[in-house]
Amino acid sequence: MLLLRSHRFLLPRCLAYSAFVSSYKSALGSRLPSLPRPHSMAKYSTSASPSPSPSRFLLRQLFEKESSTYTYLLADLAHPDKPAVLVDPVDRTVDRDISLVKELGLKLIYAMNTHVHADHVTGTGLIKKKMPEVKSVISKVSNAKADHVVEHGDKIYFGDLFLEVRATPGHTQGCVTYVTGNGPDQPYPRMAFTGDALLIHGCGRTDFQAGNSRQLYHSVHSQIFTLPKETLIYPAHDYKGFTVSTVGEEMLYNPRLTKDEEAFKSIMENLKLDYPKMMDVAVPANMVCGLQDLPTKA
Amino acid sequence: MLLLRSHRFLLPRCLAYSAFVSSYKSALGSRLPSLPRPHSMAKYSTSASPSPSPSRFLLRQLFEKESSTYTYLLADLAHPDKPAVLVDPVDRTVDRDISLVKELGLKLIYAMNTHVHADHVTGTGLIKKKMPEVKSVISKVSNAKADHVVEHGDKIYFGDLFLEVRATPGHTQGCVTYVTGNGPDQPYPRMAFTGDALLIHGCGRTDFQAGNSRQLYHSVHSQIFTLPKETLIYPAHDYKGFTVSTVGEEMLYNPRLTKDEEAFKSIMENLKLDYPKMMDVAVPANMVCGLQDLPTKA
Repeated sequence: MLLLRSHRFLLPRCLAYSAFVSSYKSALGSRLPSLPRPHSMAKYSTSASPSPSPSRFLLRQLFEKESSTYTYLLADLAHPDKPAVLVDPVDRTVDRDISLVKELGLKLIYAMNTHVHADHVTGTGLIKKKMPEVKSVISKVSNAKADHVVEHGDKIYFGDLFLEVRATPGHTQGCVTYVTGNGPDQPYPRMAFTGDALLIHGCGRTDFQAGNSRQLYHSVHSQIFTLPKETLIYPAHDYKGFTVSTVGEEMLYNPRLTKDEEAFKSIMENLKLDYPKMMDVAVPANMVCGLQDLPTKA
Repeated sequence: MLLLRSHRFLLPRCLAYSAFVSSYKSALGSRLPSLPRPHSMAKYSTSASPSPSPSRFLLRQLFEKESSTYTYLLADLAHPDKPAVLVDPVDRTVDRDISLVKELGLKLIYAMNTHVHADHVTGTGLIKKKMPEVKSVISKVSNAKADHVVEHGDKIYFGDLFLEVRATPGHTQGCVTYVTGNGPDQPYPRMAFTGDALLIHGCGRTDFQAGNSRQLYHSVHSQIFTLPKETLIYPAHDYKGFTVSTVGEEMLYNPRLTKDEEAFKSIMENLKLDYPKMMDVAVPANMVCGLQDLPTKA
């Protein structure tokens, strides 16, 4: 099981943050994001809005039609820099995403992936070509190459807001869910960017990339279904046109994850899905966070 | 110009409401929605969230991939009935939408259209077959058949929340924008469901269905760009994967509507678009709000 709770995560915020930046390096990249230390908290409403709004927290959900992928742009509008992160960008829509970042006057600091995708090429590499100051982020367990690799319990700050990293393996070994922070200064309700671990009334397949249905079952139940019921679920994909759900709804209506573990395993073993058409291109590219042989004039 | 400001709209809320339910009938349906009179306001945070949240106002954005149409589900969660409306439902996704309404425990009262669509068949008719208590709503100027026809300045209540009707002709003669109410008890920021009048960095075509580019230009500038800049723009379509914008962003970056009227007219006259493939099916069906020859066992 990879779901060990990091002791850093239990420390008070600033202490945790110090540990966060001062330790661990991996062969693949800096172990922990080299984030600016959170400065004094700006004043803003504590009833932060969960969506695009003139309040502190900005969220934009973006859709890539070919792979039915959702990319999320998050920013701290109250911070002077308006620092922003992109979760699960797609190569085909990088120009759209960068254009939006510029229009909104944001400073993109991280291009993050929830996991090594098999159905599309991440936009991370192209973004870094066009905006070299942006750092790529992925989980250490994924074994993929990135500027920063993160582990369960880490906090990824953008301005004074942060995402908590929760290991949710099972679709792939390195899947993580990024969850907005818990606290009066963080958005309410909380939001979970679940990647393919939990989809709206579904979940990612578990039959390749070291997928494991039992592990996925435990990941969702221990790391996502333990969040407050009003927590918003923002997945990496939807194929039916849903844009959001909640923990409460998925606990009641997810046709797979409301079953017991044996029934879930049986469902996942009998999906009879085709081999992903993009897999042989996407996985090798995504193992280097999209920094495969890119055109030099990207 | 169809943009006459109804005197009812200027009256205090309860007075306006009395006028609203006591007058006007048209040959096509009841002139004004037969809404329950707003009862005492339930207590809830005045900093209502603009999106799915555990607060009073619920919003779900839903996507139909074939026609790239957005359907919106809105509800007043603080009202005992949890009354809800659907804006621009699509026939193909009616089962999905009804299922979501039921899962969320809502009482769907209106299935509304922003206009007579040319690119898809409205879901209104199918919804009424499956849920006969639901009433269809469209603008009087559209000349389409519906249970309730609305005019500029009308307020459409669901629980204690309401949508204000703003006439925004130009894409079609009967286009309206539904705008969430203005006031401390209504969602903040306001939201404008613009149909095809204003799209994200675009707008609907003006070369059929009595479309008129000058009229569209004035509609957007007088009825949408006069809303507060933080007002969220939720259009009926998006073809690039955007889900939301704001009045402020469109005033700065919309490549058509930031131009002057003559330049806008010239752009719209030179789009050289194909005839909509669904038009000959969709328009006749939508003129009767989707109540064309439906299977009797829908």
